[in-house]
Amino acid sequence: MRKDLVLGFDIGGTSTRALLATMDGTPAGTGRAGGGNPTSHGVEASIAAIGAAAREALGDTDPARVRAGHLGLAGGQPYEEPGNRARLDHLWTALGLDAPFAVDIDLTVAFAAATPTPDGTVAIGGTGAIAAAVEQRRLTRRADGYGWLLGDEGSGFWLGRQAARTALKAVDGFLPTGPLAEAVIAEAWPHPRRPAIRELVDVLARRPPLELAAYAPLVTAAAGAGDPQATAILDEAARLLSATIASIRDDSADTPIVLGGSLLTAGTPVGASVRARLAELFPTATIHTARDGAAGAAWLAALPYLADPEAAHKAFTGA
Amino acid sequence: MRKDLVLGFDIGGTSTRALLATMDGTPAGTGRAGGGNPTSHGVEASIAAIGAAAREALGDTDPARVRAGHLGLAGGQPYEEPGNRARLDHLWTALGLDAPFAVDIDLTVAFAAATPTPDGTVAIGGTGAIAAAVEQRRLTRRADGYGWLLGDEGSGFWLGRQAARTALKAVDGFLPTGPLAEAVIAEAWPHPRRPAIRELVDVLARRPPLELAAYAPLVTAAAGAGDPQATAILDEAARLLSATIASIRDDSADTPIVLGGSLLTAGTPVGASVRARLAELFPTATIHTARDGAAGAAWLAALPYLADPEAAHKAFTGA
Repeated sequence: MRKDLVLGFDIGGTSTRALLATMDGTPAGTGRAGGGNPTSHGVEASIAAIGAAAREALGDTDPARVRAGHLGLAGGQPYEEPGNRARLDHLWTALGLDAPFAVDIDLTVAFAAATPTPDGTVAIGGTGAIAAAVEQRRLTRRADGYGWLLGDEGSGFWLGRQAARTALKAVDGFLPTGPLAEAVIAEAWPHPRRPAIRELVDVLARRPPLELAAYAPLVTAAAGAGDPQATAILDEAARLLSATIASIRDDSADTPIVLGGSLLTAGTPVGASVRARLAELFPTATIHTARDGAAGAAWLAALPYLADPEAAHKAFTGA
Repeated sequence: MRKDLVLGFDIGGTSTRALLATMDGTPAGTGRAGGGNPTSHGVEASIAAIGAAAREALGDTDPARVRAGHLGLAGGQPYEEPGNRARLDHLWTALGLDAPFAVDIDLTVAFAAATPTPDGTVAIGGTGAIAAAVEQRRLTRRADGYGWLLGDEGSGFWLGRQAARTALKAVDGFLPTGPLAEAVIAEAWPHPRRPAIRELVDVLARRPPLELAAYAPLVTAAAGAGDPQATAILDEAARLLSATIASIRDDSADTPIVLGGSLLTAGTPVGASVRARLAELFPTATIHTARDGAAGAAWLAALPYLADPEAAHKAFTGA
């Protein structure tokens, strides 16, 4: 049997994606399933999602053709536990796969998906915020990623909380009621009359805290409409995210920086502002936007067997 | 029957206290019961606590001698609801009381317990943080008090969260590990080996958030031991609390400022620092420390009948 395929996985909290590709990076199948993060969803649901995505990507392909696999996931620690690792091994065998596979961290896979360079920095800004230093494709240091209660500064949660605070201060008379405060009140308080401060505090504080992240898009929209309160919040988020990234880079570093997550996409105001700040701090560094993690994982699976890793990287990821 | 007594209540989240006093402020009985806040404990438990404290304060005294009552409590809104108010009225009658009584806000009662002046500012710093403007002994404006998720800046919760963040940054290598970080790790991580950053994040973030307030005393202790990280946190807390207080006062105001709650007691470092900052901002204002709220409530009950309210205030409250 020719071993001419690799299988890469990007296993996240909301979706699990698999890419089957030839050794030179031509796609041969894709699969998608629900969230597969073992920490948030449990190991059983994680195994089920990985299995579903793999089966869809493999389709009718003979699984014995797969030469190597690579799994990128946040919170991969559960699969370091021997019992859980045995269940993952069992799934692998049940899929008909006899290839070796590696369990890796989503951050290093996101980095590898954007650049073939082995060293650099990766940052993800979504509901949370984290940055990591990568050396030889391994994570050597993290900054922030402490979660909404203790950190994630400049994240979507952070933006949503600032939006809620802006609405409270407007109702309390400490700020003029601008478009952002209006938008938060309209979402939080579905009554024609204005809320009293106690009523607005109650409705904002009594829901699950992470739901505040749903107000983050209101900040972007209000800033777009010229609200200076919203613009100040976005500026501060960009400052915090840039500081988190800079905290794990040498001032003179010229290695690439990879930015991912909905907040740090190039087209968003925070993404653009973070790019401008990083370009000033690290003028010789290239800044990339994160791409398909499953493609990065597939390229990492193929890497030991590649004659020209950089050319293959372009074929796998399009970067 | 001579109506020669008043009955005051300080109804809080952890205890309910009652003071029976003569019209000139001589104590005639005290009572104490568990938490009586109707918002956090429910109206039934609140009514029971108020009744128990009243019965203990009254003892064998004929309740028909009581001329007026005054109840101070946080979250008094439930007793504005007619059904709940009827239950409170029913308790009052069942106690044998035929005197009128008022339901008031704890903040204005705390203010009145410290000074007979009708106008000024009161701030409470404990697990939470709130300031209020008082005019003619009524609350006219609040600042902060938004709760741990959205505000309470400089509060005990805020201090505890900063302590937790200091420990995380020390474990991550962004700060030297000082006495404060050591103390938090010792409390949070009962194992001989050092926690990995993921382990410490998990243990700090997975408990009920308000439990972080338990780390506030560690900040004070570490600052006392000369830890500059802890000192910086206390300074920032005092700056935030002072800003909250200043936000509801005119720059030229010379009315008294009353400070209460475990954080703002005169003897604590934050309390001392807030006093120094306020003395600079409002050099002509007198700064008082909050006293027994039940005595303040009893004085407020007697107030309409007093020939010399200021002299009686001293007798009631000792202020």
